Amino acid sequence: LSSKLPWVGTTIFTVMSKLASDTGAINLSQGFPGFDCSPELVALVEKYLRTGFNQYAPMAGVPALREALAQKTDQLYGVSYHPETEVTVTSGATEALFAAITAVIRPGDEAIVFEPAYDSYVPAIELNGGIPVFVTLAPPTYAIDWEDVRGKITDKTRLLIVNTPHNPTGRVWTADDLAQLAALVHQRDIWIVSDEVYEHIRFDGRPHLSLATHPVLQERTFVCGSFGKTFHVTGWKIGYCLAPKALTAEFRKIHQYLTFSTVTPIQYALADYLKNPEPYETLPAFYEHKRDLFLDSLRGSRFQFQPTEGSFFQTVSYQSITDEPDYDLAIRLTKEIGVASIPVSVFYRQKNDFKILRFCFAKNDDVLLQAGERLCRL
Amino acid sequence: LSSKLPWVGTTIFTVMSKLASDTGAINLSQGFPGFDCSPELVALVEKYLRTGFNQYAPMAGVPALREALAQKTDQLYGVSYHPETEVTVTSGATEALFAAITAVIRPGDEAIVFEPAYDSYVPAIELNGGIPVFVTLAPPTYAIDWEDVRGKITDKTRLLIVNTPHNPTGRVWTADDLAQLAALVHQRDIWIVSDEVYEHIRFDGRPHLSLATHPVLQERTFVCGSFGKTFHVTGWKIGYCLAPKALTAEFRKIHQYLTFSTVTPIQYALADYLKNPEPYETLPAFYEHKRDLFLDSLRGSRFQFQPTEGSFFQTVSYQSITDEPDYDLAIRLTKEIGVASIPVSVFYRQKNDFKILRFCFAKNDDVLLQAGERLCRL
Ligand SMILES: CSCCC(=O)C(=O)O
Ligand SMILES: CSCCC(=O)C(=O)O
Repeated sequence: LSSKLPWVGTTIFTVMSKLASDTGAINLSQGFPGFDCSPELVALVEKYLRTGFNQYAPMAGVPALREALAQKTDQLYGVSYHPETEVTVTSGATEALFAAITAVIRPGDEAIVFEPAYDSYVPAIELNGGIPVFVTLAPPTYAIDWEDVRGKITDKTRLLIVNTPHNPTGRVWTADDLAQLAALVHQRDIWIVSDEVYEHIRFDGRPHLSLATHPVLQERTFVCGSFGKTFHVTGWKIGYCLAPKALTAEFRKIHQYLTFSTVTPIQYALADYLKNPEPYETLPAFYEHKRDLFLDSLRGSRFQFQPTEGSFFQTVSYQSITDEPDYDLAIRLTKEIGVASIPVSVFYRQKNDFKILRFCFAKNDDVLLQAGERLCRL
Repeated sequence: LSSKLPWVGTTIFTVMSKLASDTGAINLSQGFPGFDCSPELVALVEKYLRTGFNQYAPMAGVPALREALAQKTDQLYGVSYHPETEVTVTSGATEALFAAITAVIRPGDEAIVFEPAYDSYVPAIELNGGIPVFVTLAPPTYAIDWEDVRGKITDKTRLLIVNTPHNPTGRVWTADDLAQLAALVHQRDIWIVSDEVYEHIRFDGRPHLSLATHPVLQERTFVCGSFGKTFHVTGWKIGYCLAPKALTAEFRKIHQYLTFSTVTPIQYALADYLKNPEPYETLPAFYEHKRDLFLDSLRGSRFQFQPTEGSFFQTVSYQSITDEPDYDLAIRLTKEIGVASIPVSVFYRQKNDFKILRFCFAKNDDVLLQAGERLCRL
């Protein structure tokens, strides 16, 4: 069988998590919490599991969950999505991203992708015959050069992928970013897939500016979200997509044949759990504490960094420490000092020499302190 | 946004289930059990939910579940799949089917599909740019005309989709079917996706002949299975794919970007639960009883039928009752006599005039008896 994705090997997340587990290193590579979710949320799932909510959910998701999502979005961002026709529950945000990209991209279409980029965007574009067009974001600020973006838009551009707060850099979009993008796509046949899975994790008082908050963007955007990052349940694989009716109609045609529907008892539990805003309202402070703890512990090291703006990832530069390629350094740090990270070059298709590692700080405080201590040895 | 699947409307499953619920009709349309799963299985899920198994599972699935699947396949069919490289857990069999089809089909490739066909096969082929080539199976036997199949194979044929036991007709493949297919695909670049989600539901002593049992077929087949139909948990959306190493490598490259991984606590629970063969060993008798009960209750009706060979679906002909199109009759039966079914024409892309309805008998006995009574009134 000849490969449709010949360049894809084992993902870096699998490679590094396995190496960490084989060597007993602290695993700050793959992005997942090192602690458990709320027992209250587990109890809700148990309630539905035990009372017969174990058959197919509706294809678009359990109505109560779609309503809860619509309500939350309205309260937080002042935007109304109709639960019946504009909200769809998916098998993780990964499925939502794949379905949205598939709904838009046909062979020969161009899609603008900011690099570094989460690893699923480009294969999803390419499997649909699309052509990724890259805009490079460079350390230390990873700011978007909007002239560069403008220059890359052609008659064939059909899609632009946004991710805010951004994995791996943590960068959070500003009102100016939204305005710049709106000016570029206004009155063009360009759709947007916005990966907002870290919406509730941003720091230093920054708001999350969902693309849904800008009318010009809202009408052409598939907003993809996730419960995994917000409620510490990355293993439950439930996400969702918010999009205007016409876009949702196309999205669901794809979703229907990708996974059809998503785990019923967990959907009901999340519908109940979402009614209390406290868990996500307290999330920024919860993770800001962890970010600061980790960064404080790195102050004695030779790494250079700016505090991450959002997400549970911190990137650091090792430019003044060593010349090694980041992949080699990530392997060596795991084996020699016992801390696993992700080499950021894996998030770029285009070669570069940025010398950046990404650390996930969604871990217990003692683990972060110990990792910091070890990293100061380098 | 112009549609990539312009002909797709609301699925018949949603239409009929909604109509049944709106009218209070007995719902024998969408295929799901009208009873709950085993409390023991629920207890296992609860155990893992409560003890912190809530973060990402490995991309290919929890090792214990892959091992349990490999062991079961070896015991039942005498075929070894290596759990590390040949077994992948997916977000339902629907995802497995989509991933396997995506791994094989490129623009312009032809895929042979037997009609009637489960509704996700053809859109998955077409989203990948493939061309479905249909072989019609006709009532009452739905036997495969192998000369017809042979005549439809061209240089462009890359895929053939098998489904045994078959939805909606219940037909179970015979050793002769396997041999005929093997002779056709031998030494050609044709791969097979085999939907075997009803493997444990077949009647009158018929064995399930997995395509994995025939060496020529095994080496080119993605066997797609599901826990939903076997353990009465269609809402948990866990399935899997068994395929030789080279095929699995390509399958996983797609799976990784479709959903990445699948609900962790449920995977662990299923790994434990699979160790006891009793639940699936007793399934044929369990459903044969229901089939016979339903058919006995139909004997006073004017429907014509042959007892279904497998799956939890029974098709019936209404040729001697009315001339109505099956879709109209299904709607009318729901509204007037209170029994919802699926019109089988929706499983055909090519027009025909077969006049067949499909009933799901995965329901409690009293419900089946009541449905039969109502159907005798027609
Ligand atoms: C789906 S595994 C990767 C998890 C993640 O989001 C990351 O580490 O970037
Ligand atoms: C995924 S909804 C359809 C369920 C089913 O397999 C059927 O009714 O044919």
